[in-house]
Parts: sequence; C-alpha cells; structure tokens
Amino acid sequence: MKTNLSFIKAARDKIQLLNQKLLPHKLDYVVCSNGADVAKAIKDMVVRGAPAIGISAAYGMYLTAWEASKKNKKLTLDLLKKQKQQLDAARPTAVNLMWATEQMLQVATPFFAGEPSKAKDAHLKLLLALYEKALEIHNDDAERCLKMSNNAVKYLLTKYPKEKYNILTHCNTGSLATGGIGTALGAIRVLHEKSKINMVYADETRPYLQGSRLTAFELLKDKIPVTLTVDSQAAYLMQKKMIDAVFVGADRIAANGDVANKIGTYSLSVLAKAHRIPFFVVAPKSTFDNKIENGDKIVVEERAAVEVLEIAGRVIAPKVPVVNYSFDVTPQVNITAIFSEDETLE
Amino acid sequence: MKTNLSFIKAARDKIQLLNQKLLPHKLDYVVCSNGADVAKAIKDMVVRGAPAIGISAAYGMYLTAWEASKKNKKLTLDLLKKQKQQLDAARPTAVNLMWATEQMLQVATPFFAGEPSKAKDAHLKLLLALYEKALEIHNDDAERCLKMSNNAVKYLLTKYPKEKYNILTHCNTGSLATGGIGTALGAIRVLHEKSKINMVYADETRPYLQGSRLTAFELLKDKIPVTLTVDSQAAYLMQKKMIDAVFVGADRIAANGDVANKIGTYSLSVLAKAHRIPFFVVAPKSTFDNKIENGDKIVVEERAAVEVLEIAGRVIAPKVPVVNYSFDVTPQVNITAIFSEDETLE
Repeated sequence: MKTNLSFIKAARDKIQLLNQKLLPHKLDYVVCSNGADVAKAIKDMVVRGAPAIGISAAYGMYLTAWEASKKNKKLTLDLLKKQKQQLDAARPTAVNLMWATEQMLQVATPFFAGEPSKAKDAHLKLLLALYEKALEIHNDDAERCLKMSNNAVKYLLTKYPKEKYNILTHCNTGSLATGGIGTALGAIRVLHEKSKINMVYADETRPYLQGSRLTAFELLKDKIPVTLTVDSQAAYLMQKKMIDAVFVGADRIAANGDVANKIGTYSLSVLAKAHRIPFFVVAPKSTFDNKIENGDKIVVEERAAVEVLEIAGRVIAPKVPVVNYSFDVTPQVNITAIFSEDETLE
Repeated sequence: MKTNLSFIKAARDKIQLLNQKLLPHKLDYVVCSNGADVAKAIKDMVVRGAPAIGISAAYGMYLTAWEASKKNKKLTLDLLKKQKQQLDAARPTAVNLMWATEQMLQVATPFFAGEPSKAKDAHLKLLLALYEKALEIHNDDAERCLKMSNNAVKYLLTKYPKEKYNILTHCNTGSLATGGIGTALGAIRVLHEKSKINMVYADETRPYLQGSRLTAFELLKDKIPVTLTVDSQAAYLMQKKMIDAVFVGADRIAANGDVANKIGTYSLSVLAKAHRIPFFVVAPKSTFDNKIENGDKIVVEERAAVEVLEIAGRVIAPKVPVVNYSFDVTPQVNITAIFSEDETLE
C-alpha cells in the first residue's frame, strides 16, 4: 500500500529526517551524519513515533561506525556501546529504540570477538552488516505495519461488523511514525482501502499537536476523510454516538498488557469504556517489554513547560508552573484488544 | 473578598470590556456605547462567561436607551425589544444573557404602558431605572458569587474533609467571567482564603485556552497556587491521585439538573466518576432554565473551524474539516452536587 509521506530518506553516508516540528507548514529535512546527530533529532522531536525512532536509531548506530571509518578513527565495540547509550537516553520511554540499538550491537559484537586487530576487509564487512541490519529493521517495520493493520481490521470487521466506521485516533501513528503505513493509522488505511471508513476523527493531541500537524496532514495527503477535534471533545462525540471505535498506538507495553502511550490515551480508554466503545491498540512486538511487570513500573518522562506555554514560538499563557507528562499508562482492563504482527491479545 | 482583575468598567455613557482575547499579553478595553457594540463584543468573545455576558447585556440594553435619548431618537419599547433580540442571538447557549435582557425589558415595559407619548421627565426616569437595574444585576452577581462559593466550600469541608485540597478546574469562571469572585473559581478563592488550597490545576481548555489565558492569569494575579495542564492529562492526574475534587461552572442547567458547559466538562465528569472523585458545579440560579426538560433539549452551538486551526493568528494545522462544539452536556448522574446562591442540589 502506498503512502504519500515518509519520515526518512536513507542513504549510505547519511539519513535525512523530515523535521516534523515544522509540519504542516514546511517539508524540511534534517541531515544526520552520525549517531549523535540522530540522538539530537530524537531528543528535539524532529523524529517521533516509536518505530520511526527505532529505525532512525538503527541507522544512527551504522552512521557512527561509517563516520569513524571515514575519518580513520578506530572503530571499537566500546564506541558503539557508547553510541547506543546516547541514543537510548534520547527518549527513555521508547522501548523499541533500545530494541533497535541492541539489534545493531548484536550484529557488531562478533566482529570484535577473538583477535583484537582485524584486517580492513573485516572492517568493511562490519559496516556492510550494520547497514544491512538497519535496512532490514526499516523494511521489516513496513511489513510488520501491514501485518498488524490487517490483523486489526479483520478483528474489527468480524467482531464489530458495520457498513462504514467512524474511527477516533490520537497522536500520530502513520507513515511519519513508522517505516510503513503505520500502526493505528495503518489499520485506518487498510479500512479505507476496503471502503469501510466513513470518517476519521483526529484528536489534535496537545501539547505537541501531532494529531493536527501530522495525522490530519497524512490523511489529507492520502485523501482519507478526516475531521479534526480538540482532545477534550472526544467524550462528547462518544456521547453523541459519532465514534464506533478508538484506535491508538503504543510506546511501551508491559508484560501484563498495560500500555504507555501519548498523554491523553488513558483518558480515551476510560471514556471509551464508559461509552461501551471498543478501544484498540496496534503496536509491533518490539513495543512489548516483558521485563516490565506492569504499567506502574513504567517511567513516564515529564517534558518542558514551554511545550504548553508556547505554540509555534508564540506565548499563549502567563508564566505559571506546568505539569506536562509525555505519556500516560492505560491499564489492560480498559483495552478491548492489542494487535501486533502475529498476535491478538484480548 | 478582593480580586485583582475585573472584566468590566461601567460608566453612565459607556462600558469598557476587557478584551479577553488579548489576555494574558495585553490589558486592552473595548469601549461599548450601545447594545449593538455589546452584542458584537459578546459574539467576538471579547467578553465571555455566562454571568459576565448577562451583566454586559444588561448595560447594553441601558446604553441603547441612553444613546437614543442622546441622539434625540425616539425611544420605543420596540427598539428595546429588538435590542434584546440582537443581544440574545449573540450567544444562544447562555441562558442568563436572556434572563438579564428580560429583566431590563420588564423594567422598561411599564414606562410604555397607557398613554403613547410621555413627558421628558418620564423618559429620564426610564433611563435611570434601566441604569439602576443594570447596576443591580452587576452588584447582585457579586453577592451571589460569594453565597454560592461559600455554599460549595461548606459542603466540601463537611463531606470531604481534608487538610488541603488539590482542585481541578476547567475554562474560566472567575472575576473575568462574573461580577464578583466567580463561581467555581469563587469557591477556589474562598478555599484559598481559608488556607485549604494545596494546588489548583487549571485545564488549558482548548480551543480558546480560557484556562491558560484567563484562569491561570487570574490565579497568578491573586497569588493562588496554580499549575497548568493540557486537557487530555486530567485523567492521568486523577489516576495518579493528584486531584481531590473537580469544580466547574455552568452555562445552562436543565430542569432535571443536566448541565451545559464549556466543551470538555462532560469529559471531566465521566473521568471523575470513574476515579470516584467528587464533581461539583457552581452556578447562579439565573443559569437554571426550567423550561428545558433535560440536556437533550439544549441546543449546542458549533463554532468556527478557525478556532482549532489557528492559535493567536498562527496556523497550526492543515486545512481539514473541524468539529468544534462550544459546549457539551453533562448528565446530572455524573454530578456530585450543584451549588447555587441558596441551594445545594445533590
């Protein structure tokens, strides 16, 4: 399935990340020549969305190795480990960031085993192996998007049959957030392809407005019917029976099925439950963190007050304290089903 | 009780309304010399908040009479009736707008009964009567604010005793919205005076940001502890036990106790119920519309898409359709208690 926007242009010597902070006004790419550049882009929200962050970080690991070679610096496992640490720290809640950098590290490790100094040939093989792994993670994500979206749609059509659906979604989970058609937005794209979408309601998703700036933009570009709504209106749309189902993504899923996702997700889950509307999570397996027992154990980052006090550089509030959790945690009891590539958890 | 900001400066020949669209950046007053000016100010959101709208409209009725006299135009009951219609149409959901203009019309009506043409003396008496009625509605509202706030606080302290409270509020219900200390924010001010406030969490209240621009501003000016939050975070703060009670105002209350109020209010009521947090409405009797049986019968206005697509004149979203209900309706079963001047409805 084709989408009209992608978050990344990847090449052998650099990646270009679409600066999502400037959307929908400007299509501007940030050039990253090494892992440090990528870590900065993740931290600065140039790139966001768990899978996109993971893919970017994988390329970041490769680019650090590439740059070291190019500059005739010594390429050591320690350098890559440090690069992993820096990338992981750029967005501590995104578990598949760590998953992707770990995959890259595992590819590199055998090359440093045994004899300490290796021939140039081995060095190039390492670079190639890293590049191919990053590319694999990227392509693999596109395939996973399709699989989990198909799973979600099959479930919806079977368990909640309807002529056409009104779907509410939160934040951005599309081709700007993943290597493919998206997770929650992927399911919406598949539904649209089957002519089953009446309307997609996109929460604007304060404070960062991923819903208006990114989701509405993606859907507009792909000619999928979309209507924008302020976050606090979701309950009223549900009360008015304007919503048939809620689809969201996930940043991290604990072993018991609790889901950390963009602030406002938990709110929607409570509201959907109160209105007996199915609430679905679409997320790749890399989002599952079985080392974390339940949602209480997930560390939720607090972000800067300026995100709430200003919009696009314009002050919109007096200088008062702000509480600004980046994520919230939705308990599994509020979730109708979680769809991953090869599993449906009810 | 003193507050540091008021929405209005009233004089014999004009009123000045604080342009709340420019807050918190600029303290700028819009001069209104007749009812049409006031209607425009209400429509343009220069003044908002049900009681403030009612007070402004009352002065508007007077000013139309004043201006007609000043310009030696014929002052007829028909002119005042037409002025009432124009003012009422400026904000159809605000029931005490209609209540206030009706009060003014009732003051005027006897002056036009009987003999068609009256002496100049009677004319001046009418002007004086209208001015005094507007002033009475204004002062009366200040007194009502104090009464309903005291009622609310007494109830909270008795039924939910606590050393100090964390209160969540939505939109703006303070001295910028009323003739006195406010309704929901009035209760918060009384709590603060009794040293019972730990923290007031102010929802920013998209799309118009009354919470950040007005409520946070008012509380800051009055040195009451305030923390700003995006609307969609309320549920998470409740889950984290950071909220002890929710206080909101009302724009219209149906005979059965259903409450129309700023979009997002219904959402908070559902969330508060799910988290077993008391949900309180503080509103004057003029907000009660017993002619309306229940919330289903309340007409909810939809406002322009631009309110969501732009902030402070800056485009923040692509050009997509928007659904933008100004109000929502909270069913009485979700409300712990409604406090008016002399009643507590549980």
